[in-house]
Amino acid sequence: MAETYHIVPESQHNSLVEAAYVKRGFLRDEAVDGARLCADASRHGIRTHNALKALHLDHLFGSGSKGCVPGAVIEEIPTRFSATRVWNAHRKLGQPTAYRAMEAAITLADTHGVGVVSVDDAFHYLWGGGYVMDAAKRGYIAYTNCTAALAEVVPFGGKFPTLGTNPHSWGFPTTAAVGFPIVIDWATSVIAMGRVQQLKREGLPLPPNAALDRKGEPTVDPHQAVSLVPFGAHKGYGLALINELVGGFIGGSLPTLRSRWDTEPEEKHTCSFFFQVIHPDALSSGAFAKGRDQAANVKAVLRDILGHGNERCLLPGQVEADWARRSAEAGGLLFTRSEMEAFNELAAEAGVAKWPISSARTATF
Amino acid sequence: MAETYHIVPESQHNSLVEAAYVKRGFLRDEAVDGARLCADASRHGIRTHNALKALHLDHLFGSGSKGCVPGAVIEEIPTRFSATRVWNAHRKLGQPTAYRAMEAAITLADTHGVGVVSVDDAFHYLWGGGYVMDAAKRGYIAYTNCTAALAEVVPFGGKFPTLGTNPHSWGFPTTAAVGFPIVIDWATSVIAMGRVQQLKREGLPLPPNAALDRKGEPTVDPHQAVSLVPFGAHKGYGLALINELVGGFIGGSLPTLRSRWDTEPEEKHTCSFFFQVIHPDALSSGAFAKGRDQAANVKAVLRDILGHGNERCLLPGQVEADWARRSAEAGGLLFTRSEMEAFNELAAEAGVAKWPISSARTATF
Repeated sequence: MAETYHIVPESQHNSLVEAAYVKRGFLRDEAVDGARLCADASRHGIRTHNALKALHLDHLFGSGSKGCVPGAVIEEIPTRFSATRVWNAHRKLGQPTAYRAMEAAITLADTHGVGVVSVDDAFHYLWGGGYVMDAAKRGYIAYTNCTAALAEVVPFGGKFPTLGTNPHSWGFPTTAAVGFPIVIDWATSVIAMGRVQQLKREGLPLPPNAALDRKGEPTVDPHQAVSLVPFGAHKGYGLALINELVGGFIGGSLPTLRSRWDTEPEEKHTCSFFFQVIHPDALSSGAFAKGRDQAANVKAVLRDILGHGNERCLLPGQVEADWARRSAEAGGLLFTRSEMEAFNELAAEAGVAKWPISSARTATF
Repeated sequence: MAETYHIVPESQHNSLVEAAYVKRGFLRDEAVDGARLCADASRHGIRTHNALKALHLDHLFGSGSKGCVPGAVIEEIPTRFSATRVWNAHRKLGQPTAYRAMEAAITLADTHGVGVVSVDDAFHYLWGGGYVMDAAKRGYIAYTNCTAALAEVVPFGGKFPTLGTNPHSWGFPTTAAVGFPIVIDWATSVIAMGRVQQLKREGLPLPPNAALDRKGEPTVDPHQAVSLVPFGAHKGYGLALINELVGGFIGGSLPTLRSRWDTEPEEKHTCSFFFQVIHPDALSSGAFAKGRDQAANVKAVLRDILGHGNERCLLPGQVEADWARRSAEAGGLLFTRSEMEAFNELAAEAGVAKWPISSARTATF
């Protein structure tokens, strides 16, 4: 079903989003990084992590609560190791923290082949795929995971939500091979809680085996659903557990207390981030068949995977790359009318000029 | 349903398995590592990767074919990086290659916080969980993936198998927290091809959405199944793709040609391995709530996850830990009667004494 989008130049989008962050007390450079990630998300069609979502989450769990501290200074923890760093973000805004951490991991990987940056006491970085895509576009193999803001997911075989939706994001420098970086990026629940709320509004049932009711029993009724199920049974459960374990080793506290600042003040209530970058040269044996170089070899592998009748399969990151092409062709970010109106509520909050809606160019896809 | 197992002392098991490897031309130290991993698998109840499977795979794809070269010497590729190593295994037996690679990654992690060892031109290492469990018992966070011997898995939305069952294995040093290392270890297909063959023998249907027929259509008839489906739709597909991408960056060739030595001799036909170790101190912010140390914090996190009504959930690695306890109590490895008979066929091949079956002690679980 075709949808009409209003076209908003990135500079116009970023000005408004930066103003909204600054109005809430964030520093100019924090606001710039905050807007940058949201622009990246919108440009790639990641509507669940656009600026509206970012500023809403900041209001609910961030500077509007106790989860995020504008102007917080990242503390680097001393370490005896050469290829790893640990930071205490002291609840700094997630986007600037994540950009800096990925940058530091890249610098480490340039010297050591691999670099790891762990971040304690962090605030939600929104779209992990954005950071790894960025690194992959610059030629690196990148990975990040984080503990999600709320414990909404029930361990496999359990009744009560004690795990975050805990996403994993991998990016690979495959632009030379397929025209865009392969980005594998998803939460470890079958669906997101936002999807439950959307289906509730639309009066539609949930997919089976995606959510549980108050008693811990499976339900397809979005009105009864209070918790989520990991994808792939014990396999997705294991993947969700990884983030909690890594977070626990870093410094994260009890998952059921995350973002719940009204309980147990002596416990921590923040997220943990893990970033890793590998320089592709650090993996190469140099012994590629048929005299290929590394990029040509990766291209040949991908062509084999998508050959033999699999030509219609998508590569992860392809939908996002298609959106970015569409945005570039339109000359701006693409928003629905209701999104435009929501941006204008932000403009009112920030005390800046509203966007012209009726005169904005549109595109229909 | 209770099963009766024959109890075989590990020394007796290892003698036979070592003799079988030596008979096939492997060096003594290769045979020792080969037997060690199989004993580890059997001790932990991993019956799909016991010595019978190892020696059968060696016959089909290894020294009985062109996939594995007894006595091969690992070549270390020069690198400019400090925390990563790349090896060309020149088709050495997988178990000694993997043990050495994990050891090298541990040594790197001791200095750099993280260590990565990539291995090109490798032969199947069997049970990835065994290597990460080993490292986790020694206090490290370990990860490995490899490209599986055959392309049996169809990309999400495709028709033809172009991906391996491509397992991922993570191990965490949680013995202080829960009594055993958490080991998350599975293939990225819904089921293994061995499971298809087992259900065929038993005349039972496959689970739905696990396998495809010759036309690329879903089937529950094990006689029609020729390829497998990734678990979790596009998410498992992404995970399977990771191993092919990493393998492609290392030096692996086209997935559909792996282990198919009769086709395209100018291409490579071997697997790739990736190992990574992180020292847990390299993650720690030191800022654990309530004055906990890192181990106590991880314990508190796990207790929270398995609390609140989730007390009956299992942690990944728990079933394996229970089997190891059972094996220790029995005083040996546990094999069914038909496994005992298969071991005696190996004894005949190796020219060593058969195991006494009727006089072996048994245990029933």
